[in-house]
Amino acid sequence: MKVKDIGEQGLLKKLQSFCPHDTIGDDGAVLSIDPRQQLVVTTDVLVDGVHFSDTTTPPESVGWRAIAANLSDLAAMGATPVGVTVGLAVPGDLSVVWIERMYQGMSQLLAQHNTPIVGGDVCRSPVTTVSITAFGQAFPHRIIKRSTAQPGDVIVTTGYHGMSRAGLELLLNPHISSKLNEETQKRLVQAHQYPQPRLDVLRPLREIAEDESITGIDSSDGLGDAIVQICALSGVGAQIQSPSLPCISMLSQWFSLEQALNWVLYGGEDFELILCLSEKIGNQLVQKLGEKASIIGKIVEETSVVLIDKSKAIKISLDQGFQHFQ
Amino acid sequence: MKVKDIGEQGLLKKLQSFCPHDTIGDDGAVLSIDPRQQLVVTTDVLVDGVHFSDTTTPPESVGWRAIAANLSDLAAMGATPVGVTVGLAVPGDLSVVWIERMYQGMSQLLAQHNTPIVGGDVCRSPVTTVSITAFGQAFPHRIIKRSTAQPGDVIVTTGYHGMSRAGLELLLNPHISSKLNEETQKRLVQAHQYPQPRLDVLRPLREIAEDESITGIDSSDGLGDAIVQICALSGVGAQIQSPSLPCISMLSQWFSLEQALNWVLYGGEDFELILCLSEKIGNQLVQKLGEKASIIGKIVEETSVVLIDKSKAIKISLDQGFQHFQ
Repeated sequence: MKVKDIGEQGLLKKLQSFCPHDTIGDDGAVLSIDPRQQLVVTTDVLVDGVHFSDTTTPPESVGWRAIAANLSDLAAMGATPVGVTVGLAVPGDLSVVWIERMYQGMSQLLAQHNTPIVGGDVCRSPVTTVSITAFGQAFPHRIIKRSTAQPGDVIVTTGYHGMSRAGLELLLNPHISSKLNEETQKRLVQAHQYPQPRLDVLRPLREIAEDESITGIDSSDGLGDAIVQICALSGVGAQIQSPSLPCISMLSQWFSLEQALNWVLYGGEDFELILCLSEKIGNQLVQKLGEKASIIGKIVEETSVVLIDKSKAIKISLDQGFQHFQ
Repeated sequence: MKVKDIGEQGLLKKLQSFCPHDTIGDDGAVLSIDPRQQLVVTTDVLVDGVHFSDTTTPPESVGWRAIAANLSDLAAMGATPVGVTVGLAVPGDLSVVWIERMYQGMSQLLAQHNTPIVGGDVCRSPVTTVSITAFGQAFPHRIIKRSTAQPGDVIVTTGYHGMSRAGLELLLNPHISSKLNEETQKRLVQAHQYPQPRLDVLRPLREIAEDESITGIDSSDGLGDAIVQICALSGVGAQIQSPSLPCISMLSQWFSLEQALNWVLYGGEDFELILCLSEKIGNQLVQKLGEKASIIGKIVEETSVVLIDKSKAIKISLDQGFQHFQ
């Protein structure tokens, strides 16, 4: 059954079951925000052929990733989610099952965070487009900013980088898989298709840091871009120690070191958090989060961002690396 | 200059000037909601070739209409706007000036309501897609619902219907224009390209009705659909008096009566409010809003929606008319 067979009204009716507020296609939804907290809003648009494709992402993954991107933005601001809206534009010959599976993917991740779909819109388009807006709430003094990093801060990443990009490579070039055992293949593909936004970090972070000012960002555009952005907005620089970069040693078992480094820095879509904190709190946080989290470098006064590998006498300027995104 | 010449980053930089919070493309925006009020959220997706086109809507109008649709949804819920996010997906060969002009159209209407663009996203797509999410606030007991109409209520429309559809007809078939004087042409085209969401109605409404429960909807999908929806959700019916329908007599000067009736009922995108109120408050509101507003009928127990023209002994069942939307 295709969208054109049931029409927009028929599709809306089917999608209502994913929306407890029963407001998809309605005027709007009503939400209560804790009066002591501020509303945090973030929005992301995903387009078929640009951000997802049938060869690399099943419909459940498209929905999951769309939600992950937005929840990750909320986590990066220190906000807990309260709801999302879904704006969906689809061709008439798209199968209704594809759309239902995509909503299932969205609902599965949202359920993990007790977050409802509170509304949305459905319309026709030549190209499938998913536009998510997520609402969160945060206490004003606990909002994480990008512009407040200070020399002396350590830089913590909450997990591995380059995994999503490596998973994408496996999906695009299946012959690579033969080099890897099944568990590794699964893990990398999972990292690409079902990434976890790091909302789980907020509670342990605040147990340690309580009301301290925290600087942070998520790594949706890559670890390199994340650090460059924080430094540019804070008017500082950073020194990253290459051997401490999570995942390089793991990825370079299977791919060239250059490939691994490139993916860790510029792969993107791992949706980890990059936080700048005092050394004391940084150490406590890494201990609390366990083996995946690590201190990868420090904030310095000089406004350049460099990656240092002393053992190989390599020094990469990430500010310049970032250029290729522009 | 085209989007592909400056890239997504370059485009983001240009669009920042329309966004006082400086957060287009950033993680997200922070907004303060009056702690006594609830958050009201609404979202709409507009697609090139489906909701707008170069022949009928200049870029300023595309932006204006996208905002109008969302602010109208807020007005229909009794909410005042506090901000919007804009998700934009554009082809690489779209001119940057087109996008800037579209944002100008959005900004012009938003400025009339002191509402900022607080964030957004920009990405590539084969087809231009504009996804707006609007945030408003409303006191819980003053939220206007669709499901609370009661037999005995009068039905008030805040303005003319069919105007937007007539304007679209002029734009699609310019040869029709010769029948109309210049002022009328301008007025109809204006109604299509730059419709006014009726947020202005909320204050006079509350001056008269204060905390009374009000039922309402906007007429974005047409006057007929609006009344049918209210009746279906409220479990009631309605009788509309054809001679009291605003705009039929005006439009039928230039178009056939059947054409005029069809556009008034099913044209859509006039973004007026349809309100169900006690007779006393309805009369006071019409008096306060002036000549454009009128009482067009009443809510009845019997669950059918009929349009009655006694002078011509016509009786149209709108519930059936609504079928052709499905």
